[in-house]
Amino acid sequence: MRALLLDKGLRIVDDHPVPEPAPGEALIRVRVAGICNTDLELVKGYMAFRGVPGHEFVGVVARAPGAEDWEGRRVVGEINAACTTCPTCLAGRPTHCPHRTTLGIAGRDGAFAERLTLPARNLHPVPDSIPDEIAVFTEPLAAACEILEQVHVRPTDCVVVLGDGKLGLLCAQVLALTGCDLTVIGRHEDKLDILARRGIPTALDDGDDSTGSADIVIEATGHPDGFAAARRLVRPRGTLVLKSTYHGSFDADLTMAVVDEITLIGSRCGPFAPALRLLERGSVAVIQLIQARYPLSQAPAAFERAARPGTLKVLIDVEP
Amino acid sequence: MRALLLDKGLRIVDDHPVPEPAPGEALIRVRVAGICNTDLELVKGYMAFRGVPGHEFVGVVARAPGAEDWEGRRVVGEINAACTTCPTCLAGRPTHCPHRTTLGIAGRDGAFAERLTLPARNLHPVPDSIPDEIAVFTEPLAAACEILEQVHVRPTDCVVVLGDGKLGLLCAQVLALTGCDLTVIGRHEDKLDILARRGIPTALDDGDDSTGSADIVIEATGHPDGFAAARRLVRPRGTLVLKSTYHGSFDADLTMAVVDEITLIGSRCGPFAPALRLLERGSVAVIQLIQARYPLSQAPAAFERAARPGTLKVLIDVEP
Repeated sequence: MRALLLDKGLRIVDDHPVPEPAPGEALIRVRVAGICNTDLELVKGYMAFRGVPGHEFVGVVARAPGAEDWEGRRVVGEINAACTTCPTCLAGRPTHCPHRTTLGIAGRDGAFAERLTLPARNLHPVPDSIPDEIAVFTEPLAAACEILEQVHVRPTDCVVVLGDGKLGLLCAQVLALTGCDLTVIGRHEDKLDILARRGIPTALDDGDDSTGSADIVIEATGHPDGFAAARRLVRPRGTLVLKSTYHGSFDADLTMAVVDEITLIGSRCGPFAPALRLLERGSVAVIQLIQARYPLSQAPAAFERAARPGTLKVLIDVEP
Repeated sequence: MRALLLDKGLRIVDDHPVPEPAPGEALIRVRVAGICNTDLELVKGYMAFRGVPGHEFVGVVARAPGAEDWEGRRVVGEINAACTTCPTCLAGRPTHCPHRTTLGIAGRDGAFAERLTLPARNLHPVPDSIPDEIAVFTEPLAAACEILEQVHVRPTDCVVVLGDGKLGLLCAQVLALTGCDLTVIGRHEDKLDILARRGIPTALDDGDDSTGSADIVIEATGHPDGFAAARRLVRPRGTLVLKSTYHGSFDADLTMAVVDEITLIGSRCGPFAPALRLLERGSVAVIQLIQARYPLSQAPAAFERAARPGTLKVLIDVEP
């Protein structure tokens, strides 16, 4: 099958073996896949991943041995394939299973290919009312919902989202639904306008490094230097949610986080069911986030485009 | 008056001016003061403090204009002198008041002197049953209690305290009172024995860097390299409490904290009232933590002793 392969670089191959679903797994025909910032980091060396990247997708179940009910259904899929039997899984934290594989990130080929496999239990049927180009946002929107799983955001809280990239715009829209006093700080007037048109207050980041007084700050810049800026915006005893993952570590002055008794919360993959509900209800705008679409055969060019500063979501149409 | 002065170094001066209590403040005759790791960091340049260090003390109120009830009482004192009127103070976070001075740390001369001043509202009377050399532990014990103010430690939680220094031994004893499944990891058999004799499980840090599965880890090593070790010990979605403050920032790999969705909580000064209750009830052993006592005239030697690796609490007898 055709696939985008990451080894020494990115290249299209036409003879990648079709993956064979293990018992309990489904073979999925990918329709549309999205390029995430994590994919760009994988190319730089994050997770030392080699294989087919891609973890944001919508597709149709081609074959599901032992779970035939799924066959023919249009689905999205949670990306962590857990063992289900270890203490971490049994404690209700399967997305942190130490034996897990992660679609297109660790130990499992991903969605920039004509077929992928996932455990059937990871799948969620997509309501007919949600078109592919919206359904493909389920995974990143779930990651935005994860913030509300982890932090009690009160309607009276003063909240700042730092970063107007793909994930920042989704986080901002999800947080706005709480009724909180939200401001989104970014560097791109056109992106902030997407939020402003939805009544969400925004501010251009002018490099002002005055301190802030936010109860909760979401660091979603995707850059290591976002941490210090986010840190300055949060009040003493406030909460700083870290959504960015990078290749490599970075300098963080945790001494001042101790002095100010900040709570830092790392936040990653989130729950699919509420993300699908929000998409079905039209509560979150995602179409406006699509910047370009490429066929799978031009996936390397799609990555180049996605890597340009200021680019929002680039989709890959895997099925013509 | 006699005082230990930190400017280009530490030296005893005999003609330091006696501080004048501002309205609402008390002038306190210091009896005993303790050397904290923060004091050692101040000498290295932390907070760029110049003046009289020292923030752990017990003393007697000499004069309290407008609050004469306090005069003659033996007291301990909370170290942050807040403005009481700014939004941070009015939000119930006076220890984070941006206008605060902090005894012997920022903007206010401290306890390694014959006299100090503090707002009368910062004072707590010391019950007669608590001798000076125990009462002087109120401030660091309050800092240990702060962990329980910030984190809900369940009796079923698996908790690790990393570090067997002064603060680590106090944190461990406070956490043990919750009934949690506690292990203290340190590098000094003699210090760990203080806990082992009280039935608290301990382990010598043998440099093993296997990953752990603790629900909560307290980083109390006082060294920047303690962070990575603490990070390895905490389970995904677990909580890491940071008690150490250092001069300068340090490398922390927050990317892995995001991937594992760790909650990091900076923790500093704590509540005095519960600390005094624990001391009065004898729930926490502190006498065993005293390693040496020096008169104020030999305070520089006391600092040298306190800075030696492996030294527990060094007290300074300010009043002969």
